[in-house]
This record gives sequence, structure tokens and C-alpha cells, in this order.
Amino acid sequence: MLILLDQDGVLADFERGFHDGWNARGDVPCPALPLAARQSFYVRDDYPSENRDVVEGIYTAPGFFRDLPPMPGAIEAVAALLAQGHDVRICTSPLNQWRHCVTEKYEWVERHLGTDFVHRMIVTKDKTVVYGDVLVDDKPAVTGTRQPVWQHVIFDQPYNRHVAGPRMTWASWQAVLPQLARRC
Amino acid sequence: MLILLDQDGVLADFERGFHDGWNARGDVPCPALPLAARQSFYVRDDYPSENRDVVEGIYTAPGFFRDLPPMPGAIEAVAALLAQGHDVRICTSPLNQWRHCVTEKYEWVERHLGTDFVHRMIVTKDKTVVYGDVLVDDKPAVTGTRQPVWQHVIFDQPYNRHVAGPRMTWASWQAVLPQLARRC
Repeated sequence: MLILLDQDGVLADFERGFHDGWNARGDVPCPALPLAARQSFYVRDDYPSENRDVVEGIYTAPGFFRDLPPMPGAIEAVAALLAQGHDVRICTSPLNQWRHCVTEKYEWVERHLGTDFVHRMIVTKDKTVVYGDVLVDDKPAVTGTRQPVWQHVIFDQPYNRHVAGPRMTWASWQAVLPQLARRC
Repeated sequence: MLILLDQDGVLADFERGFHDGWNARGDVPCPALPLAARQSFYVRDDYPSENRDVVEGIYTAPGFFRDLPPMPGAIEAVAALLAQGHDVRICTSPLNQWRHCVTEKYEWVERHLGTDFVHRMIVTKDKTVVYGDVLVDDKPAVTGTRQPVWQHVIFDQPYNRHVAGPRMTWASWQAVLPQLARRC
């Protein structure tokens, strides 16, 4: 099975990185929202609009993407998927503010998944033009210019609970992905 | 028609950049090969193996990819393809030495095709997992893990003349691509 894995929010813990980055600043107007209170896919939409520059300043800063911690269990799960014979790729969209983000996504993969895994990266704003059997992604609706061939498996996050369909975390993937594999 | 355009050797003039970069160094053991004498897709294979570090040093240097000149006619042709209603994307593979190359590919596109065109970039080592009607690429054989759905249109360069199939340059594309579009 060709499994496309989104990077941020699935492999890399964007939420923790943002939360810690926000609280580490001395000049923020309020404490960071706890993860359970996050309702919008775009973190900037969960903070008052007058804080938008502060919010964007955190995740566009040099080092933000490079230094994100892995999601708990993610690295081990990728190794297990490969060991099961699946073809695993990372399918990730850069920020519109791509200047640090793109290279740092590569640095993150090299650091946590190894030099060779970098060759498995697909960086694209439009994931619908990429072939795969499944796309594991925390974005509630992954849209683009085409009808995708992959099935979207929601990576569970508080801000996507309203979406129906297959859903997993790195604690539950073994009950979800093998069932889909049997259909492919 | 969804047209995938390779970046280096198709939109960006890698050969000129390398040629000029080589000749600008004071310590190279011989003049740069003229373009007509280039026989291998990988420029390093056209120079003696003892010069490999010098060859790689040129195209892995900071600024090399960012500062490549556009291929003559490329920017105008992209605008014309868009004006004809085609969906045009850049489908590009980073070097194994990706540290400068990835970000600089984005910088190049921003500079020469505009901020919005950056959203049309697809960066992947394996182009066979990308959907498209055609892939315009100077690489003699574009292979990967899948049977691609796109048709490979060779972008004419001296090092790919042994390959059969549709072939174009930015001087001849108008006689080649519309014929393929009628089949899609």
C-alpha cells in the first residue's frame, strides 16, 4: 500500500512546538491555548485577530519547523509500516511563508527518519495531484484541483473531530490502516 | 491539460550556470565543456572522475540554483500555456545535497514566475507518483516506483538525443504540446 503521511500535525508535533514557542515569549498577551481547546486547523484562527502577527511570528521563525518534536509513537510507527512492506512517503504542504519552512522540513526528516528517508518527501501545496492509496492528514478537508485517488484517513486532532471517516492516531493506527490495506 | 514542467534544464538554465560557474573559478584543471559536448545527464559524469569534488562544489554552492538564468523563452512560454488554459506545475527533484537547492528552487520560481507560482511547485525525487498529462523533462528516462500516468516529452538537450519520443524546446513547444493536448 502506498501510504502518504502528512508531516506537521501527524509526524511532527506542530501543536506542541507552537504552544511551547508561545509560552516561551515574554510578550504574549495571554497563555497559549491548551491543545484540547484548539478548534481551527489554522492556529492563527484560534487566537484574537489582533494577535495574528505574534502567532505567525512563532511558526515563521527560523528553527521552528526544524526543532519540532516528533509526535509520540510516530517514528516507531513509520518503521513498522516499512517493515510491513508498505511504501511510505511524506506528503507535505509548505507554508505560504516558505522561506525557512521548506528546508527545515527536510532537516527534520533527516534528523528523525534518516538521510535516505528524505528521498521519500513530496512537497506540494496540492496533494490531490499525488498518487497514493491513503493520505493520513490532520487537515479536516484536503482539497485541490483534482479528485484525489487516495482515501483520506484523518489523523485525530481536536480541530478535526467534526469530520467523518477513518480516523487514527499513532496509538490506534494498527487497527485502522491494515483494514484499508486489504481493500487496496 | 495538466502539464508538469521540470525545473533545471527546462525552465532554469543549469548548463549555463554550471558552465559559467566552472569558468569563473581560477583553479579548474580545464575549460568547461561546451554544451554541445555534454553527453551525460549528470554533468559530473562528463568530467574526469578526479574532478568530481570541483564539479559538485559548483552546483552545491550557496546561490547556484537561485542565480540560474531562465532558459531562453521559458518564462514567456509558461505565460502562454497558462493563457491557453492549461494547468501548469513545476515538478522538480532536489539534489541529494538538498541543503541549498530546495529553498533556492523556490526563490528562483518566486523571482522569475512570481509569488503565486510558488504554489504550483511539486518537489519530489519520484515523479512517477505525480499525476499529469505530460511531463516535460530533460532527463532521458524518468523512472520511479510506479508506471507514470503522464507522457514524457523530452526537453531537447545534447545529452538526451538518443531518446525517442516527443521532443521540444521553448522554440518548438507550440508544434508539440497542442497535439498532445488533443489526446487528453
